Amino acid sequence: MNEQAMQSIVQAVVSKIKASDDITLSVAQAVAKKVRARAEQLGVKAVVAISNRAAHPVLVESMDDAYIASYDIAVQKAFTVVSLKMSTSTLKPLAQPGGSLYGIQFTNGGKIVIFGGGEPLKNSKGEIIGGIGVSGGSEEQDTKLAAYGKEIFEKGQYL
Amino acid sequence: MNEQAMQSIVQAVVSKIKASDDITLSVAQAVAKKVRARAEQLGVKAVVAISNRAAHPVLVESMDDAYIASYDIAVQKAFTVVSLKMSTSTLKPLAQPGGSLYGIQFTNGGKIVIFGGGEPLKNSKGEIIGGIGVSGGSEEQDTKLAAYGKEIFEKGQYL
Amino acid sequence: MNEQAMQSIVQAVVSKIKASDDITLSVAQAVAKKVRARAEQLGVKAVVAISNRAAHPVLVESMDDAYIASYDIAVQKAFTVVSLKMSTSTLKPLAQPGGSLYGIQFTNGGKIVIFGGGEPLKNSKGEIIGGIGVSGGSEEQDTKLAAYGKEIFEKGQYL
Amino acid sequence: MNEQAMQSIVQAVVSKIKASDDITLSVAQAVAKKVRARAEQLGVKAVVAISNRAAHPVLVESMDDAYIASYDIAVQKAFTVVSLKMSTSTLKPLAQPGGSLYGIQFTNGGKIVIFGGGEPLKNSKGEIIGGIGVSGGSEEQDTKLAAYGKEIFEKGQYL
Repeated sequence: MNEQAMQSIVQAVVSKIKASDDITLSVAQAVAKKVRARAEQLGVKAVVAISNRAAHPVLVESMDDAYIASYDIAVQKAFTVVSLKMSTSTLKPLAQPGGSLYGIQFTNGGKIVIFGGGEPLKNSKGEIIGGIGVSGGSEEQDTKLAAYGKEIFEKGQYL
Repeated sequence: MNEQAMQSIVQAVVSKIKASDDITLSVAQAVAKKVRARAEQLGVKAVVAISNRAAHPVLVESMDDAYIASYDIAVQKAFTVVSLKMSTSTLKPLAQPGGSLYGIQFTNGGKIVIFGGGEPLKNSKGEIIGGIGVSGGSEEQDTKLAAYGKEIFEKGQYL
Repeated sequence: MNEQAMQSIVQAVVSKIKASDDITLSVAQAVAKKVRARAEQLGVKAVVAISNRAAHPVLVESMDDAYIASYDIAVQKAFTVVSLKMSTSTLKPLAQPGGSLYGIQFTNGGKIVIFGGGEPLKNSKGEIIGGIGVSGGSEEQDTKLAAYGKEIFEKGQYL
Repeated sequence: MNEQAMQSIVQAVVSKIKASDDITLSVAQAVAKKVRARAEQLGVKAVVAISNRAAHPVLVESMDDAYIASYDIAVQKAFTVVSLKMSTSTLKPLAQPGGSLYGIQFTNGGKIVIFGGGEPLKNSKGEIIGGIGVSGGSEEQDTKLAAYGKEIFEKGQYL
């Protein structure tokens, strides 16, 4: 095998590892596009935010005429799911008065969201490498849309 | 139809659309004046805040000897109703512990108010083009005063 | 002098003292109206904020199409002049790098403004009982407008 | 003029006003795509943020491996240019120590950015209807990229 062929293989392997190691902008855009299409079907004007494995936002898209408040909520959902490694729906009961994590909504500069619409995104090794936050519909709609985003991401159906 | 006639029509349409498209200061002042008069009848010293369709404040008036805390509350009520497109009374049950939106009071930098006294203002096309927030009395009084502001705005009775 | 006449006099004195002891909403409105009229003459779309002797806002009016940023700036100018008992123009040189108060712009939660457009309002006894903040034009314009507001307030020319 | 002709005119006026009246997500995406392509040519990993006429963010895209700090900077540049109606390059000299607006970087909750890379976006009527903020390269690069975004937006070259 000549050096050029070798380099091509190494390049390919590295890029594949990298691809599944964190959320790239192009992957985030592909996922968000599908989530927005689904939102449109449901009549929801959503803000879709996708964060990377460091919980920093990679992409935020606000559909025309979405709630003004939804921008912060979507970004913060995408932060919450990576920084706590659980969906905001899972966090919800824990954060109610009397729950084991009640009060977490006041930590982290108020960036923890405790209602549905945020889902962590896992790679094929099961590691959380990003998060999706959706805001704009009812809690049920946002939860469904985020779960849909998670599903197409993890099944690679966003391509 | 000649071009001049065309331009006149376009101009007229544009100005009409614009007129009902956002809250002007003079309209906000007229509405606030009536709301304050009503507050005085009820013995309430209120802060009245009116925001535009972008949820930015257009006018804030603090009646003499109103609660110091009422300034922020009124301004934030006027923000809440535009940014979430619902009255703070409608939001209230959703934001209780166990409710679908419990926790929304901590998003958006703490600017979401979840008790009565904030109402969205709609134009004749039914679009939300602003909001009114009232604070200073009991929740019931603030709710009535904001609803009164909404009513006179939407019926054009502030003139 | 009978008791009724006595009471009338006491009432009048008390109300006069009170009237000049703090900024009332109606006085703030009268001053702001004149300042806005002057702004209009200058072609400035201003936000005018007036605070009371406790540095809390009494009135904020945003002229149509004023800068979005001007709301915070006007409110904070009106806070600055009462809380530091000097105009923002007086504060300006002191807050430059090397100045005696350099750094004050980072205290008080970032609410101290260090450029022109804020003036304290004094009663006839020379006490600062409120402040005016104007934002929307050049620094020179804002400074002139705030000085005009101060002048008409202190000379009682707003009636 | 018959009713059909009337309706056509109204429709045309409404769509013209609406189309050029604010930044839609699809326009923001088209502009950002071109700006990212140009950034790639320059070897810059940029965050591109686009705000609407209310200074609220419509779209934020973070190119892979962009500075973490660039997210806030780009979003805040897009806020600054709409809320102050000038580019951040224009604001820069005014906000230097001794400048007329020195200190504005501390108002508005620290959301005002005073170095290059933010440009207002104007419609064909010359109204500012949005803003673009770019962060990730040198100040010169960010300034060029934002200016490029402004140019293609205003010339309609993003289609």
